[in-house]
Amino acid sequence: MSHSIAILGASGYTGAELVRLIATHPSFKIVALSADRKAGQPMGAVFPHLRHLDLPELVTIDQIDFGAVDLVFCALPHATSQAVIATLPRDLKIVDLSADFRLRDPAAYAKWYGKAHDAPDLQAEAVYGLTEFYRDQIRSARLVAGTGCNAATGQYALRPLIERGLIDLDDIVIDLKAGVSGAGRALKENLLHAELSEGTHAYGAGGTHRHLGEFDQEFSAIAGRPVEVQFTPHLSPANRGILATIYVKGEADAIHTAFTDAYTDEPFIVVLPMGELPSTRHVRGSNFVHLGVVADRRAGRTIVFAALDNLTKGSSGQALQNANLMLSEDETAGLMMAPVFP
Amino acid sequence: MSHSIAILGASGYTGAELVRLIATHPSFKIVALSADRKAGQPMGAVFPHLRHLDLPELVTIDQIDFGAVDLVFCALPHATSQAVIATLPRDLKIVDLSADFRLRDPAAYAKWYGKAHDAPDLQAEAVYGLTEFYRDQIRSARLVAGTGCNAATGQYALRPLIERGLIDLDDIVIDLKAGVSGAGRALKENLLHAELSEGTHAYGAGGTHRHLGEFDQEFSAIAGRPVEVQFTPHLSPANRGILATIYVKGEADAIHTAFTDAYTDEPFIVVLPMGELPSTRHVRGSNFVHLGVVADRRAGRTIVFAALDNLTKGSSGQALQNANLMLSEDETAGLMMAPVFP
Amino acid sequence: MSHSIAILGASGYTGAELVRLIATHPSFKIVALSADRKAGQPMGAVFPHLRHLDLPELVTIDQIDFGAVDLVFCALPHATSQAVIATLPRDLKIVDLSADFRLRDPAAYAKWYGKAHDAPDLQAEAVYGLTEFYRDQIRSARLVAGTGCNAATGQYALRPLIERGLIDLDDIVIDLKAGVSGAGRALKENLLHAELSEGTHAYGAGGTHRHLGEFDQEFSAIAGRPVEVQFTPHLSPANRGILATIYVKGEADAIHTAFTDAYTDEPFIVVLPMGELPSTRHVRGSNFVHLGVVADRRAGRTIVFAALDNLTKGSSGQALQNANLMLSEDETAGLMMAPVFP
Amino acid sequence: MSHSIAILGASGYTGAELVRLIATHPSFKIVALSADRKAGQPMGAVFPHLRHLDLPELVTIDQIDFGAVDLVFCALPHATSQAVIATLPRDLKIVDLSADFRLRDPAAYAKWYGKAHDAPDLQAEAVYGLTEFYRDQIRSARLVAGTGCNAATGQYALRPLIERGLIDLDDIVIDLKAGVSGAGRALKENLLHAELSEGTHAYGAGGTHRHLGEFDQEFSAIAGRPVEVQFTPHLSPANRGILATIYVKGEADAIHTAFTDAYTDEPFIVVLPMGELPSTRHVRGSNFVHLGVVADRRAGRTIVFAALDNLTKGSSGQALQNANLMLSEDETAGLMMAPVFP
Repeated sequence: MSHSIAILGASGYTGAELVRLIATHPSFKIVALSADRKAGQPMGAVFPHLRHLDLPELVTIDQIDFGAVDLVFCALPHATSQAVIATLPRDLKIVDLSADFRLRDPAAYAKWYGKAHDAPDLQAEAVYGLTEFYRDQIRSARLVAGTGCNAATGQYALRPLIERGLIDLDDIVIDLKAGVSGAGRALKENLLHAELSEGTHAYGAGGTHRHLGEFDQEFSAIAGRPVEVQFTPHLSPANRGILATIYVKGEADAIHTAFTDAYTDEPFIVVLPMGELPSTRHVRGSNFVHLGVVADRRAGRTIVFAALDNLTKGSSGQALQNANLMLSEDETAGLMMAPVFP
Repeated sequence: MSHSIAILGASGYTGAELVRLIATHPSFKIVALSADRKAGQPMGAVFPHLRHLDLPELVTIDQIDFGAVDLVFCALPHATSQAVIATLPRDLKIVDLSADFRLRDPAAYAKWYGKAHDAPDLQAEAVYGLTEFYRDQIRSARLVAGTGCNAATGQYALRPLIERGLIDLDDIVIDLKAGVSGAGRALKENLLHAELSEGTHAYGAGGTHRHLGEFDQEFSAIAGRPVEVQFTPHLSPANRGILATIYVKGEADAIHTAFTDAYTDEPFIVVLPMGELPSTRHVRGSNFVHLGVVADRRAGRTIVFAALDNLTKGSSGQALQNANLMLSEDETAGLMMAPVFP
Repeated sequence: MSHSIAILGASGYTGAELVRLIATHPSFKIVALSADRKAGQPMGAVFPHLRHLDLPELVTIDQIDFGAVDLVFCALPHATSQAVIATLPRDLKIVDLSADFRLRDPAAYAKWYGKAHDAPDLQAEAVYGLTEFYRDQIRSARLVAGTGCNAATGQYALRPLIERGLIDLDDIVIDLKAGVSGAGRALKENLLHAELSEGTHAYGAGGTHRHLGEFDQEFSAIAGRPVEVQFTPHLSPANRGILATIYVKGEADAIHTAFTDAYTDEPFIVVLPMGELPSTRHVRGSNFVHLGVVADRRAGRTIVFAALDNLTKGSSGQALQNANLMLSEDETAGLMMAPVFP
Repeated sequence: MSHSIAILGASGYTGAELVRLIATHPSFKIVALSADRKAGQPMGAVFPHLRHLDLPELVTIDQIDFGAVDLVFCALPHATSQAVIATLPRDLKIVDLSADFRLRDPAAYAKWYGKAHDAPDLQAEAVYGLTEFYRDQIRSARLVAGTGCNAATGQYALRPLIERGLIDLDDIVIDLKAGVSGAGRALKENLLHAELSEGTHAYGAGGTHRHLGEFDQEFSAIAGRPVEVQFTPHLSPANRGILATIYVKGEADAIHTAFTDAYTDEPFIVVLPMGELPSTRHVRGSNFVHLGVVADRRAGRTIVFAALDNLTKGSSGQALQNANLMLSEDETAGLMMAPVFP
């Protein structure tokens, strides 16, 4: 059975990634694509890599007949998303890719995003979209909030460890290296090729990155007590990919076992053999996550690694996986393409 | 119906690309993977991006039971390929990705490859694998010779023009920019990241590149007279992608019309609107070809552009497309994934 | 003896490159740096790689006391430059890095830049800054116009051949691959890392690139008749470097001899042995030009290559070389640093 | 006064970097260059970016007349270096760039390098080459051991903190991102452009990287007790540059003050304002180190950053700085070139 899909905000990278993935989905059909400033243009002019597809022209949101839509992917900017979703039919299934509905607590939202939430009822309704850990709620959800791409990466590595009480909750360091597409298609000087290539640097260091709000929310909920990690993101001169290098106090063997236990039936989570180190190159363009575990030379300390593609598993692939659940399709439909290497 | 597939030379990039593509093919099943020096290893150790797949272990060629195989992809090095294929059962369907069977004329082979061919009977039997122009022969072929990736790129741009007599055959310049994966996984100093990144250079200039043998063979056959193009390949610091910039004497409008006529029903060839320029980024990881046409300021001169992914349409994707034909499957099966951008 | 130097437009890449080069110049002292929108900031905040230098703060142009300045480098945007220079003291030595004074003919300027020139008297006064060919005029000039970076690259390869009558003037094709810094620090979508890396594409094809105005002017003047070349620039995913691949009809030996004759005493022009191909990597960050010559397999056809760093020899290094001449310093002062490889 | 310099192992990246730096040194003259396997070739054939220089041809080591040499840079592979240096005249000044003389303790050497040292008397004689902290000893040394590039980066950030007792010695995490040139010009599959570009991964994780031997030696000596840090190096797809992100327990203000105090008179160490983050791009090709300090949201925790160019300050620039001291030249001679950006 075919489902009619709309994508709002189709002129950004996550919008284009959704189209790429849905292009070979067996039962999803894109019926509407919005992009306010580029309305009237064919999608192939905005993203020439999608030229071969038969896609609807870009329109403004108010031109879309949502009555004919089964599910909406909302790939709009933060803050815009909550305003738009508040105007959509209340029975419409929605997967939001913005940051707007990731935090359940209005106070936490205000703290990390610097403003009160405009749609607190929707905020209360939204289900956090980390599929492997919220699968049942997502299946019956109307509104699912896609996670932050960095937040997803860290959680795949840490949730099973916190759940099982395997690590010291007061000494968790997440050092993260992210490709540039996570910053979107925005015109910023520091995203220019000449500025970004051939080097690396940290940003948002010291505890200011907004994805910390998700770590705090999720890890504290699992632990049943406040957990505050240290988190330093870095920009790496690659387009796709996130590698989290995580320093914990805990036993490597127990941690590796926890991973294999937790993820044994998961179609997209690959636990590498003890001591093997993942690379972002080996998940590029795919919905897979690679996890690695290494014991440190210092007893009781372990380094955990997680790698995923920020645009796929970290964003649009996750969104499609959740949409499959919400529409009772095979969870992996359209998502089994192998990574692209080299 | 399912077909049993073997891949010889699975530890190189074209072998891995075949596995990537077949991973989501609806009716191909990989039953054997060979790699002489890495026999005994799991494919996931040699190419960790394929770890999630359930693949047979790497073996030596003589360990393969070819009686249980419907089609073999032969991704072996040049010269090795002709020796191996000569030992395979004579009724086995084979798609060869090496240079060994691209040239029909033993003298031309000897000229470009510096040795006499070891299997001249197979050389005579082989069908040239440029799908769009040899489709019928490929359908009934037993042995198909994959084209050179550069040779394919140039031919998509030039064949329709030569066939229709639209350009001066004595003044054709192909200036080509190729990504590095076309050089394979060989350990060569000039392929190191530190040597190759952040710059560009020509190689094999002046008419020494072996793919000229294919241009000469094919263009002369079409024209009915000897045609010798000028051809300068350059290495570009990108992993995938070939862009051919071709200078011809002919009228841009007629050339553009020839493209739209020639390729109107082709599933993988996209002719851009007049004046639009293709980019290798927009075909990356896919089986699509983008063609562009621009009139020069000097009357009667036109620049033609062709872009494709050397590992996909230029090699393994082309091979799979041909295998689909040889096994009476849908020609596009396993090949419709959209390009990966960014 | 020390010279007091001002740089207008110091917040762009050519401005920063001037500061980098002057940092180790034995007799130049930077006394003023302007950047209208960033006035009041320290240069080290705008370009952290210059943090170790003791530099004046950025100011607006009207804050500069030009009476205390011996020479001004004007690294302003096109069109802005002519307006600003028209207001500067008429006895001030100026090296302009914009396109504003490259074309001597007002009609040619209007054709290529789409507007009448605002300072035609200055346009008449300006000397074209291709040092090796205008050395004497530059020595006594007050206003020198830096060349286009692509225009410089092509001219190093072609001027000696046209001067000596060695090539067919009606069949010259310049296929050029340029790094991204030539496009400046402007916020354009196509200059983002995610858009530009990992691929290549042409732009301004068919005879629309403005540097053609320089080719037309210079080559026609040398030949004593109109010469119109074909010119296709491409963006290559590297920050610095231009490689021109030039297809000519002429004899390779005579061409190579012409190069060694023409450039034998030039400190910055390196003629490679016959058949060796230059690479942009081998001139990066330096003021050197590498020239290569290869005979084509087709008799009477030759491919000529020229490589330089667009920000150094193509722009700021050239400007400094000219300033040295204008101030009677050693022409190579501050410019002998070796290329940075890898 | 001019000094005669020999470079052993001139066909590797650190050898070429020495030549690049010495090219503009006011008083060093290269009189001999060795490269066993490439003896007989001109240096410009092995490293075309040095073509413009008038350099001696590559020879074998035994062809060099060391009586005419004032100082030797030894850029040979590990283990080879100790064997060669043992054969050189005992009064010859030597700066070794290999790992052979970094560790003072024969047992530590055996532990980290897996073999007994072949020249224990030279090992005892060698001075550790971290200029800013061993300046006086280096001035009078005959044999100076260049530090590991990663080891240098970490030490610039941590030595002043350990010396002043500002941080918890039991919880130091060094997460390091290194460019690829640090791995040298060796033909290894994982250094190919197609393998390394467009991604990132860790290596030598868990406490196995040999530069830990230097950290252990130096930090323990300063602290007067054993100190064992955690250290995870990552490969970043850039040619040059190391960024160390270091997690410590200590107060950010005190740490920042310690840096400004420790480095106030150092010509090459730039301490960024509190909260500013260094980038490898801003030290590329130069001998400068940029240091940054950020307070974490968690009280008493600080993140410290150090960036340098592995080939310059991390290796050949450091070596030249030390040679200047050993030959009573200005310490900064030949080393003041500004970083190359972009």
